[in-house]
Amino acid sequence: MKAWKDYQEHKKDRFLNELIELLKIPSVSARREHREDMVRCAEAVKESLLAAGADKATIYPTAGHPIVYGEKISDPSKPTVLVYGHYDVQPPDPLDLWHSGPFDPVVKDGKIFARGACDDKGQFYMHVKAMETMIRTDSLPTNIKFLIEGEEEVGSPNLAEFVKANKALLDADVILISDTAMISLDEPSIDIGVRGLAYIEVEVTGPNRDLHSGVYGGAVANPITMLARMIASLHDENNRITIPGFYDDVVESGAEERKLMAEAPFNENEYKKELGIDAVWGEKGYTTNERTGIRPTLELNGIWGGYTGEGAKTVLPSKAFAKISCRLVPDQDSEKITRMLIDHLYKIAPAGVTVKAELHHGGEPYMTPIDSIGFKAAAKAIEATFGKQPIPVRGGGSIPICALFEKELGLKIIFMGFGLDSDNLHSPNEKFDLQNYYKGIETIPYFHQYFAEMQ
Amino acid sequence: MKAWKDYQEHKKDRFLNELIELLKIPSVSARREHREDMVRCAEAVKESLLAAGADKATIYPTAGHPIVYGEKISDPSKPTVLVYGHYDVQPPDPLDLWHSGPFDPVVKDGKIFARGACDDKGQFYMHVKAMETMIRTDSLPTNIKFLIEGEEEVGSPNLAEFVKANKALLDADVILISDTAMISLDEPSIDIGVRGLAYIEVEVTGPNRDLHSGVYGGAVANPITMLARMIASLHDENNRITIPGFYDDVVESGAEERKLMAEAPFNENEYKKELGIDAVWGEKGYTTNERTGIRPTLELNGIWGGYTGEGAKTVLPSKAFAKISCRLVPDQDSEKITRMLIDHLYKIAPAGVTVKAELHHGGEPYMTPIDSIGFKAAAKAIEATFGKQPIPVRGGGSIPICALFEKELGLKIIFMGFGLDSDNLHSPNEKFDLQNYYKGIETIPYFHQYFAEMQ
Repeated sequence: MKAWKDYQEHKKDRFLNELIELLKIPSVSARREHREDMVRCAEAVKESLLAAGADKATIYPTAGHPIVYGEKISDPSKPTVLVYGHYDVQPPDPLDLWHSGPFDPVVKDGKIFARGACDDKGQFYMHVKAMETMIRTDSLPTNIKFLIEGEEEVGSPNLAEFVKANKALLDADVILISDTAMISLDEPSIDIGVRGLAYIEVEVTGPNRDLHSGVYGGAVANPITMLARMIASLHDENNRITIPGFYDDVVESGAEERKLMAEAPFNENEYKKELGIDAVWGEKGYTTNERTGIRPTLELNGIWGGYTGEGAKTVLPSKAFAKISCRLVPDQDSEKITRMLIDHLYKIAPAGVTVKAELHHGGEPYMTPIDSIGFKAAAKAIEATFGKQPIPVRGGGSIPICALFEKELGLKIIFMGFGLDSDNLHSPNEKFDLQNYYKGIETIPYFHQYFAEMQ
Repeated sequence: MKAWKDYQEHKKDRFLNELIELLKIPSVSARREHREDMVRCAEAVKESLLAAGADKATIYPTAGHPIVYGEKISDPSKPTVLVYGHYDVQPPDPLDLWHSGPFDPVVKDGKIFARGACDDKGQFYMHVKAMETMIRTDSLPTNIKFLIEGEEEVGSPNLAEFVKANKALLDADVILISDTAMISLDEPSIDIGVRGLAYIEVEVTGPNRDLHSGVYGGAVANPITMLARMIASLHDENNRITIPGFYDDVVESGAEERKLMAEAPFNENEYKKELGIDAVWGEKGYTTNERTGIRPTLELNGIWGGYTGEGAKTVLPSKAFAKISCRLVPDQDSEKITRMLIDHLYKIAPAGVTVKAELHHGGEPYMTPIDSIGFKAAAKAIEATFGKQPIPVRGGGSIPICALFEKELGLKIIFMGFGLDSDNLHSPNEKFDLQNYYKGIETIPYFHQYFAEMQ
């Protein structure tokens, strides 16, 4: 163990510089114009695995963006850890709110700023550097496999097919993912669940063309107003979602779990101050941590319609659009909720407009069993480097592919995330604290050690 | 009179080609990038007045876009008609819905398609060609003044100052405006009123940055959802506007006027079919013609916020925006309603977000007295060329400067419009029927004749 630490201590600058190079590639999976950047990024990931000591690394083309697979089989009799991560990133806009270019990484105040710094390039790269450490110091207690995809941010549309077709290749004893956050370096935590997702787009059409708002205003249903009415009706006065049946499959958390959650450190004043808001919001009867952890949600991700340019245009538009997504908790089913949401929007469409809605992507919620070897190894590894036991928490984000992994590969998933909620994931000025980055690289070898020992 | 008709019959092609040249200039007043096009268009208007026989024509710079003034004083003892029009046009977007370029005029099926074809280049140019006709045939019975501005579509912010500073220059006996529509060539009508306008933009801010909708969703007020709730609350279940005091100053139309309006030709099925809608909409207790004529309205002209690009982005945005405008009727006051609307939006701002709203532009409603010489001359002129008496109607649009004209110049305004409601004003594929264009050029000299005779 001393050897790991020594090795890493002398390689810190290189570990950072390599990450910076990876962050320079604008691997935005949602945008067609970045197709070639995606290929370039997959190549860079493959090369990084080989450079870190992998026996082999391969790029698998898909109908979308390529998947990178790599492995170091030290001894087939040892347990195998499959690391899952993604090299694609969210679109960087709104660009004018970034203090530096999203793909011109800048280190400032001990943090690295760039799109993907935390989500997920910085986090999966910790595993590459941890593997390098264990290989170079001759202390790898496991076999390691890497599955790094390029479509996580768009719902992993091609990963399921790859997993189903490559079960032997991906055979392992546990899946380890660093794509979540911890409370803080002082209060380490482990996510024991991720929420599911149902993301749709809705189009409301009124008249067959944009109209003069003076000549037709007041006499023709305005699609913006109608869409606003539909959106406003999706929550009731207690901010509960009004779609009939939406909560039917939600497993209510017991008093015990809610009591434990209430003990997790949370300062509402700090939270409000950090976000610049004068009040929190959400479903009545639940705390902020519960609202983002154990409860499903419905959020508007985007809206547009009519004239959005400079100045004034007196138009009654033909169309208005919105992007809407729900976060789901066990045992909600993504497909069922998507269908429910779309059907509901059709049903509440006001007279005078027509509604079209379709799925963008979805994913199932997932819960980690805390009595599994994987969870215990992760908790012990964190205790080893942080000096205190991690708090189990339920994260609000989604990793759509988890349920599929469990079903197809029969493996449990451990979320060992080293990000922070304040890392501006999906926002301008995404960052990753270098302390967290190095702490992650330091902690991961312990996981492999304990996971091997506990078998 | 025969001389006019003969003259015009032989000049039809030139009258069309000159209009086409004017329509090629993208004089979009709302967009800064068209500043030079605006100057070019003002020059073209000035040249057209001189070519038509004006004694003089001058471009007056303003803090915004220039004003063109021209005159033909045939005899100071004759009555003077002041023609008001505008050479600026609405922004052409959405561009992808145009069948041909908005500034590449195309003649098809007897109609000319281009932005500004009807509103208002085609309509004010009829007056230029009518003046040419009367001058060239030595039969001008009046003096004519032209006031053609470049900021009507953005609320005429600099016209008031010009009018106040140039009262002697603009001294006249009546103001004649062709910037409205008639029911059809078979059912000629004259607008006896235009609605006022109060156009604002509202910005709703939630958290101080875009957030990950998984990490924060359900716990932080979403500005899109909050804006939608605010918009939805602006009309009640009878589609009446809910802003306290909004209807206080509305002069309710009497049973007699409503009875007359009900007699105007209107086919609801045709109306719905032409717009592609399955139901009309509006304030309970009023007909479609009443809703667009005698009632005030509140319409959403634009909305935007969050991620509006391709694909999916799971963001809880920091901001959402909307453009909202009210059409006003006598005796509503634009400034008062603007204040009322903005104050109301501040008042209904939900906890967790802040609201900022500001005026884009406004204008007062205006009614033409039907017992005035101007109105009688217009009605008689239309009867002379259309063979039937025009129906007096109340139009839905706004010409913000009318109330100011009356106050500063002490003149009544006559709306002698030759457009059609189906001309796609402010919409893609704006057009002007050539029949209407020529009919307008034919009718205007009669107005001058009757107006002079009736003094």
